[in-house]
Amino acid sequence: MNNNKPRIAVTMGDPAGVGPEVCLQLLANPGVEEFCIPLVYGDASVLRRVAGQLGWDFNTPVVARTEVLTADSLGNIDRATVLDFELLTGHEFEPGRIDARCGEAAYQYISAAIDDGLRGDVSAITTGPINKEALQAAGHFYPGHTEIFAERMQADLWCMMLTSDVLTCSFVTAHVGYAEVPNLLTTARILEVIELTATAMRRIRGHEPKLLACGLNPHAGEHGLFGQREEEEVIAPAVEAARTAGINIEGPLPPDTVFLPWRRETTDAVICMYHDQGHIPLKALAFDVAVNTTLGLPVVRTSVDHGTAFDIAWQGKASASSLFEAVRLAAKLCRA
Amino acid sequence: MNNNKPRIAVTMGDPAGVGPEVCLQLLANPGVEEFCIPLVYGDASVLRRVAGQLGWDFNTPVVARTEVLTADSLGNIDRATVLDFELLTGHEFEPGRIDARCGEAAYQYISAAIDDGLRGDVSAITTGPINKEALQAAGHFYPGHTEIFAERMQADLWCMMLTSDVLTCSFVTAHVGYAEVPNLLTTARILEVIELTATAMRRIRGHEPKLLACGLNPHAGEHGLFGQREEEEVIAPAVEAARTAGINIEGPLPPDTVFLPWRRETTDAVICMYHDQGHIPLKALAFDVAVNTTLGLPVVRTSVDHGTAFDIAWQGKASASSLFEAVRLAAKLCRA
Repeated sequence: MNNNKPRIAVTMGDPAGVGPEVCLQLLANPGVEEFCIPLVYGDASVLRRVAGQLGWDFNTPVVARTEVLTADSLGNIDRATVLDFELLTGHEFEPGRIDARCGEAAYQYISAAIDDGLRGDVSAITTGPINKEALQAAGHFYPGHTEIFAERMQADLWCMMLTSDVLTCSFVTAHVGYAEVPNLLTTARILEVIELTATAMRRIRGHEPKLLACGLNPHAGEHGLFGQREEEEVIAPAVEAARTAGINIEGPLPPDTVFLPWRRETTDAVICMYHDQGHIPLKALAFDVAVNTTLGLPVVRTSVDHGTAFDIAWQGKASASSLFEAVRLAAKLCRA
Repeated sequence: MNNNKPRIAVTMGDPAGVGPEVCLQLLANPGVEEFCIPLVYGDASVLRRVAGQLGWDFNTPVVARTEVLTADSLGNIDRATVLDFELLTGHEFEPGRIDARCGEAAYQYISAAIDDGLRGDVSAITTGPINKEALQAAGHFYPGHTEIFAERMQADLWCMMLTSDVLTCSFVTAHVGYAEVPNLLTTARILEVIELTATAMRRIRGHEPKLLACGLNPHAGEHGLFGQREEEEVIAPAVEAARTAGINIEGPLPPDTVFLPWRRETTDAVICMYHDQGHIPLKALAFDVAVNTTLGLPVVRTSVDHGTAFDIAWQGKASASSLFEAVRLAAKLCRA
């Protein structure tokens, strides 16, 4: 029955954050198995401790990670399951605190999911929230999930996309300083991001998407009045090339007009030149429901759009809607 | 009766744009005279032609600009009035087209309003939308209104602020290229903008305002992970100095978290480092109702937040709500 549904690895994230409780909510949601088989990569004892503390049920089947590896049987799991890494008991650390043991466990879940994805044992990976400082305390120096995936999957052509019902943005640059952005903008890179976005949006929307490209400068430079004519010399040629290749895209537009209500309603995705150009309107308009995805990887990868939220960890207050949407988006992106 | 209400010069903007029709709507709105005496600086024949074309009434008293100047009697006008500059008939140009004669007329309205403001004959100036290319065709080379005011009023300490019910933003830099921003950020300049904003918001809100300062880099640099530590070295010292001076301000914060709904509800104004940092969320959340004001001038100045909208000029489609709000804000800013 479930055999044609994608098997999706859901990494639990930092055990001391809200990852365990949103995974518990995901597993308790019968709607999830309508479109995928979720496999939570985490520690069953942590999930049990959080469930116990909150008075929640935890009836999902648990399989030891080591057993699955030995039996080479991951591909036979046909229902929601917790893959238990048996790294933690859930009693050796405190919720809401940076802990190298938690950073190490979070890294192990991700690393295993990447291995399984590359082998084809899972069709997609959805990641729970990690804490960068905990990760670094464990000796893993990455600015974020995306860079772990890009490095481990040896991807050199990828981009970040954030998607929600009200707005979807792809990023030509993301986790770099403000001042570095202009030097990173090239026509080739912008064209890559446009093409990755068009491909992803075709799968997500099921139709040929309408894209918009932002300019870099205020008013998109106003014909050279502001800036170094990045719009004319770098962005416009990429938009032209994409149009020649059959992609429905307009721009570069003044960045502050791209996110007007009528524009949002008539656009499937926006190509942003830098992190805050798209993150500011996304978080203002769709906080808590946006999903982060890395386009261009050999395995589909989506992520929650929130952090570990240490201040409310293990309190049952965190919403699982972002994780649910992330898993749903991963399932859509698995469509051929 | 009206003598203690502020006299506000409302410049008609480019005659070929939507300025005339929004001025007509303003003059037809009885609510306006409850808080000010609006004096429209424009051409009566243009207003009459637009009113005639749209089938609208135009009953506002008209006084020739030259008469007022000769009689030195501007200060005696105690009701809504059109100051007729008699520069155009309204038949020598087409609506919706760039025309040097319109650019020249628009400039004359502004220039006269500035003269009257500096002499104290009007308490504030609210500007209708101008077309930069028409202005330049007439030989007036300014990036926008703000720079005309700053130059003519010899102000060297000023900033742009955009305000609306849902969000108010002040700008440390505005109409400059993306790449120029980092070099323009200094602790002294940021502190100036914070102080100007605090003063203005006290008048507007009638209480001590709560301010937030944005960082420059993604995640506000995340302790030096992205960027050149502009947050720690340039922005934070300005915030600290403002706090020492008694201003209620927090920051620098990650720019994409500043505009979350709960933040907006608990904040009176946001200090933005660059144009699109504030314009993107403002236009996404409050298009058509935001008001532009230039803080730090010797005369209060506010402006509509929309352009000439040449595509719909003289069609009666343009909303006058931004002009109404701009006049109302000017009246509030006149309070001691």
